[in-house]
Amino acid sequence: MKKTNIVLSGLLVASVSTFAMGDALVKKAQNAGMKPIPSSQSELMKLIDNPKNPITAAKVTLGKRLFFEPRLSKSGLISCNTCHNLGMGGTDGVSAATGHKWTANPAHLNSPTVYNAVFNKAQFWDGRDPDLEKQAQGPMQAGPEMAAPISLVESRINSMPAYVEEFKAAYGDDVKIDFELITATIGLFERTLVTPSPFDAFMQGDSDALNEKQKTGLKVFIDKGCASCHNGVGLGETMQPFPVANAYKYADVGGFKGNKNGMMKTATLRNIEETAPYFHNGAIWSLKEAVQEMGSTQLGIKISDKEAKQITCFLKSLTGDKGDISYPQLPVITNKTPKPDIN
Amino acid sequence: MKKTNIVLSGLLVASVSTFAMGDALVKKAQNAGMKPIPSSQSELMKLIDNPKNPITAAKVTLGKRLFFEPRLSKSGLISCNTCHNLGMGGTDGVSAATGHKWTANPAHLNSPTVYNAVFNKAQFWDGRDPDLEKQAQGPMQAGPEMAAPISLVESRINSMPAYVEEFKAAYGDDVKIDFELITATIGLFERTLVTPSPFDAFMQGDSDALNEKQKTGLKVFIDKGCASCHNGVGLGETMQPFPVANAYKYADVGGFKGNKNGMMKTATLRNIEETAPYFHNGAIWSLKEAVQEMGSTQLGIKISDKEAKQITCFLKSLTGDKGDISYPQLPVITNKTPKPDIN
Repeated sequence: MKKTNIVLSGLLVASVSTFAMGDALVKKAQNAGMKPIPSSQSELMKLIDNPKNPITAAKVTLGKRLFFEPRLSKSGLISCNTCHNLGMGGTDGVSAATGHKWTANPAHLNSPTVYNAVFNKAQFWDGRDPDLEKQAQGPMQAGPEMAAPISLVESRINSMPAYVEEFKAAYGDDVKIDFELITATIGLFERTLVTPSPFDAFMQGDSDALNEKQKTGLKVFIDKGCASCHNGVGLGETMQPFPVANAYKYADVGGFKGNKNGMMKTATLRNIEETAPYFHNGAIWSLKEAVQEMGSTQLGIKISDKEAKQITCFLKSLTGDKGDISYPQLPVITNKTPKPDIN
Repeated sequence: MKKTNIVLSGLLVASVSTFAMGDALVKKAQNAGMKPIPSSQSELMKLIDNPKNPITAAKVTLGKRLFFEPRLSKSGLISCNTCHNLGMGGTDGVSAATGHKWTANPAHLNSPTVYNAVFNKAQFWDGRDPDLEKQAQGPMQAGPEMAAPISLVESRINSMPAYVEEFKAAYGDDVKIDFELITATIGLFERTLVTPSPFDAFMQGDSDALNEKQKTGLKVFIDKGCASCHNGVGLGETMQPFPVANAYKYADVGGFKGNKNGMMKTATLRNIEETAPYFHNGAIWSLKEAVQEMGSTQLGIKISDKEAKQITCFLKSLTGDKGDISYPQLPVITNKTPKPDIN
């Protein structure tokens, strides 16, 4: 769209032609339910903000500090960022999440990315929590993850004056710093972790944002039916039955079967090239193999090597901008701060 | 010194008077061997640079990425920053360093801070390595720490094209990316982790940089003899016999006795309020108690509660500026990247 102002006739012809091709493909993607991350800040805020606890700079800064805070774990060694590493696509790069006392997740569940998780209609692989605020309460308490009782989390944070001051600055002087507010503040920070990608620019009219191979890949992606689950802004927001058509090749790893109705959260495809290994049990390391396995389990079709490569090519256009993440300085403990306990 | 230009007579008198007091104390500290981090960049570079592999922006950026890189560990879960957390005074906040398979250091040794470690004349508690480049090789290979064989470290890094490109940009196209260069690049980044503090400003002529309590504390610190080991720019750079006068209260924890001559590295006092617990075995959590225990073990004197509080007050003026640390994005793995192994 930008290019319609160009008057040099040669360029104009080229642009219109690219634009026309892009435009048809954008419509095809829109019709398949695929949506960009809004480029307008106000539109984006409508999608990500929490009306009950609106986003402010002070809360987000505090939430980021807490996200990187290992003293929220019993051992003092594990933070949210340990399993949802913001430098590694928001994941840990291992098959099964590994936490307190080096314990792997009992169902061999893989840590999902925290980037763009705000677009999920439900959190956790079984979709048991409605939002990021509630989600943050789970791993902090879970024995094989951060293993911290609620009272320990509250004592640690309240024992450090710098945190108390920061909560007051964010929420007012009469703030009660309890487990719910601590985790809600982390959740609020996580809501801001959205990563606009070339795909989003393409969907918003910049037809050059995807190269020809990526455009072909997008077409194949839609034609094969991938967008029937991987749609919305998150490109995978909803709960779906799993598997649908054929058994999952690695179903025996961990034995997780989804929620009581056999439904599982559809993983977002955003930043997918950064978040191997794949599937709920992290059993598949190759993105191409993951694409083919999804064709088998969910669509009941064979996706050829060539098609899988084309789709993979498109998927790499979903790698988004993480922005500049400044690493936070954490407050100093006091003699009231409960000691770390690695046992 | 800055204030000599002030012409309002009242202020001038006040400043000169403060300056005179500050000036005598600065001389006293200088005579005790205490030195500031140079404020001049060129003077600082003389202290921290490595003539064999000079500091450049490209190498430091790469070294920082590697410092935060968990895939340098066997498990893929532990980075240098895990035990030397740059948001927690360059330490982990637990008594004994805890690494691969949740193993505590066999001699119950505490992770020393990486901030200002460049000023140490030797690295490790037993001083066995001469510099940060060599030091970085230890924990990466040690079974209870990162547990990564040399070949694994080299394969992981060389398997990721983004790292190969970054090494080429830093060292030239014919670079050989081996274990020595990987660890040397981390060491080079660590050389830049110096944290100028109010104490340094004070030593450089800003007499208001310390408040009256901190000045009193500095005086007591010197008068008691603390600066006889805690001197130089690092305020603790050298190897010293330990203990000298009386047995260490928690000598039984871990049983570490120093090097073959009973010498131990004197811990830097910079950022000391952020680096509890204290001593080689992390057995003491209170800074005041640590000061008193040092009086007993090293100086053979009783440091009173009042004196310990005064000294502690001064020690807090050693908390320095960490600068803005941007959290690095890490490269994507390929099908050649050796998988993480938590066993």
